[in-house]
Amino acid sequence: MTEAHPIPDDTATGGMRRVLWRWALVAGIAAAILVIGPPAGITLQGWRLLAIFVATITASIVRPAPMGAVVFIAICVLAFTGTMTPVDALTGYSDPIVWLVLCAFMISRSVTKTGLGRRIAFGFIRLLGNRSLGLAYALVATDTVLASIVPSNSARAGGIVFPIARSVAEAYESTPGPTRRRLGAFLMTAVYQADVVACAMFLTGQASNVIIAKFAQSTGGVELSYATWFIGGIVPGIVSLLLVVYLIYRIYPPEVTQTPHAIQLAHDALSRMGPMSRDERIMLAVFVLIAGLWMTTAWHHVPYTVVALFGVAVLLLTNVLAWEDALSDRAAWDTFIWYGGLVHMAEALGDTGITRQFAEFSAGMTAGWGWGIALVVLLLVYFYAHYGFASITAHVTAMFIPFLVVMIAAGAPPALAVLGLAYASNLQASLTHYGTTTAPIYFGSGYVTQREWWTVGFVISLVTLSIWGTLGLAWWKLLGWW
Amino acid sequence: MTEAHPIPDDTATGGMRRVLWRWALVAGIAAAILVIGPPAGITLQGWRLLAIFVATITASIVRPAPMGAVVFIAICVLAFTGTMTPVDALTGYSDPIVWLVLCAFMISRSVTKTGLGRRIAFGFIRLLGNRSLGLAYALVATDTVLASIVPSNSARAGGIVFPIARSVAEAYESTPGPTRRRLGAFLMTAVYQADVVACAMFLTGQASNVIIAKFAQSTGGVELSYATWFIGGIVPGIVSLLLVVYLIYRIYPPEVTQTPHAIQLAHDALSRMGPMSRDERIMLAVFVLIAGLWMTTAWHHVPYTVVALFGVAVLLLTNVLAWEDALSDRAAWDTFIWYGGLVHMAEALGDTGITRQFAEFSAGMTAGWGWGIALVVLLLVYFYAHYGFASITAHVTAMFIPFLVVMIAAGAPPALAVLGLAYASNLQASLTHYGTTTAPIYFGSGYVTQREWWTVGFVISLVTLSIWGTLGLAWWKLLGWW
Repeated sequence: MTEAHPIPDDTATGGMRRVLWRWALVAGIAAAILVIGPPAGITLQGWRLLAIFVATITASIVRPAPMGAVVFIAICVLAFTGTMTPVDALTGYSDPIVWLVLCAFMISRSVTKTGLGRRIAFGFIRLLGNRSLGLAYALVATDTVLASIVPSNSARAGGIVFPIARSVAEAYESTPGPTRRRLGAFLMTAVYQADVVACAMFLTGQASNVIIAKFAQSTGGVELSYATWFIGGIVPGIVSLLLVVYLIYRIYPPEVTQTPHAIQLAHDALSRMGPMSRDERIMLAVFVLIAGLWMTTAWHHVPYTVVALFGVAVLLLTNVLAWEDALSDRAAWDTFIWYGGLVHMAEALGDTGITRQFAEFSAGMTAGWGWGIALVVLLLVYFYAHYGFASITAHVTAMFIPFLVVMIAAGAPPALAVLGLAYASNLQASLTHYGTTTAPIYFGSGYVTQREWWTVGFVISLVTLSIWGTLGLAWWKLLGWW
Repeated sequence: MTEAHPIPDDTATGGMRRVLWRWALVAGIAAAILVIGPPAGITLQGWRLLAIFVATITASIVRPAPMGAVVFIAICVLAFTGTMTPVDALTGYSDPIVWLVLCAFMISRSVTKTGLGRRIAFGFIRLLGNRSLGLAYALVATDTVLASIVPSNSARAGGIVFPIARSVAEAYESTPGPTRRRLGAFLMTAVYQADVVACAMFLTGQASNVIIAKFAQSTGGVELSYATWFIGGIVPGIVSLLLVVYLIYRIYPPEVTQTPHAIQLAHDALSRMGPMSRDERIMLAVFVLIAGLWMTTAWHHVPYTVVALFGVAVLLLTNVLAWEDALSDRAAWDTFIWYGGLVHMAEALGDTGITRQFAEFSAGMTAGWGWGIALVVLLLVYFYAHYGFASITAHVTAMFIPFLVVMIAAGAPPALAVLGLAYASNLQASLTHYGTTTAPIYFGSGYVTQREWWTVGFVISLVTLSIWGTLGLAWWKLLGWW
């Protein structure tokens, strides 16, 4: 998943003291909220939930422990303090959305394991890889195609595309150090920035998009189906993909521009792979089936999760995915644990009335602005607040609902507010080297300095915001969505 | 967990054909049930649930795939056929009982990792290990003490006690082959048979005991708390432990009777371990705290699962348990998946009315027997049916509720019926070398032939049935429970 947080180094290497300070900060924030006490109309129990939720989000930012452990402890606190009954605290774990994410992990693993992902990548490279710009497009195309069913961007951009990008760079003797700008730095930057766009293009672009769809429905009354998300994103998405890669090629160019060797590499790899294996063919069929069923939900009404469960069941029955393999996917279980806990906490918070009070309060603040201004200002605040988040999910669970509520209260069309926030939630990951889980992988490869990474990220954020804010708006108007 | 089914060898080594035949059998049974169709008063949906449930239980016996995969597929079928809504099919995963089991896995892992389990074992050996009979008692004592909070008998009897038993046997030059009867064969048999008794003594003796408690409440209206279970089991349990080990020492004696070297071994191991580490001390404190809180639920009313969550939270916060370590416990996730699915299916089946119809039908059959006879006959059938089960949980989920319903319908006091079935569910594991998950470990060590194993198992089953059927009955009468 996008959000398959690897274990933070800090807890392992950094001093125990730093960890203790972080826990102290988390506990302090919870204590402060408890001391302030609930305003009129909010129950003490609801207020306690807010304190635990804010503490959990804080912990997801300062990371005194891995995310899974943080949420596990939060559930314990919820149940132990009687803020929720045990059943209620654990409800998230039977939420179909959480299981969709778990299934997606298993599907990703199969795409990787069968070699189908690599085959797609080498196919694109053979087609487009003659120049370094084309090579970047080939890698981006792979990532985008996979994003149609693999909502784990660390699995697709990290697990499948990254090793290929690095090995091509190394084939052109570009390694971290003096030769980094020959090819590697460009590829890493371009693929990462385009991956962020691919995340925005599909409901399955990254894991928290399904949470966004859930919040959009529950808070905004707007249904973001797989098809809606895709249709809304396709025009600004494709333009962004093309432009972002090209722009990076201009402002942060590689020294090597012709890459015939990459084509040779792809040829060799493909002929080594031989014809598609039985497992690969089954995986491809499941891939097409899942994407097809998700795209056509409006006709057959089979829920997304059931489609995903079905896909996994086929992979298990045909032994394309070995159960033992699924069990050893630690990132899957980590995500399952923190996802299930967090999703339900955010949901339950909506029932306390706190969100509504917050909206009423904020509506007063933006009163007289006109909804257009309010929408733009709030979206920009939302977007650039991502400098403070190391995870799209943390950002979404913390800010999506309140911002959506305020926008709607300010008079913005709900559909527009939802679309704006939904796509922004993904595009904002361009900003930093910790914006989403693939960032540490690409940045961590050592080809790009932090200064370069942040500069390119900021420029690209302006570009994508402009594209989605003009072309996107026009496209959604054309579709009659607002 | 008792039921942390390792991946069956068959699917890996045995032919694809055998796997296909097994799936065909599973599907055939489901089809047969569907063809027969529901009797009057049962909905088609309820009947479909029965077909899927029976197919799942069949698959848990013939094992065409690992248990986790089987249940995963069953959930998919439930949701895909509309037999349950996705949320309903997944409800088990927010059941506190399922989480109690998950927490127990994490606690077990910490008991093992900190070395506390080994320290307890060597402590007992230093105290009692001078003769081979005492040595067996020392190992059994370790297992029994751990059973008070570790409901994973493969973690305690398999993970902690087994390696020590084997290394002591090897120290006396008893290995599989000609020297097996010197010491190893006796130790393996005695520890396994006593482990089965330890399983019966605690609500946490093995994983399905919590399911039994749930069924006892929902079907029999009998509350089996941690304290009730323990008080009911302590007298027949301790007598059984003492007698079973001694009896095996007589009928299946080791050639080596004096084992002073074991004491030396324990001394050495303990001095190598040095004083208790910080992690061990914390683990011990958590151990005592959890057992204490579970024992005293009647006073403070904190649910078992909350206590377990609290214990795990303390272990995580103090870093005694690393999250990464918890994530890599494949057996934990496997059990979580199949447990959550199966528990809810069994529960939902109760709501279809099928169980009640079955009871009414069977009540006619046992009519005129007198409840005493009915109870004895049904208990014996239930007990020896375990020859056909490779897992206590499969047996319990398949047979516990119908047998309990029939016993109560025949006029047996519900408390007595529940106690009889609850303890029998554990003791029956003595019969075979696949009766519960520790069996393949102890049998698989190669010290004991299958013929010896089954003979001893059958003899011990007669002994434990006699003890629990006379002394147990008297003890529960004395307690005023029937």
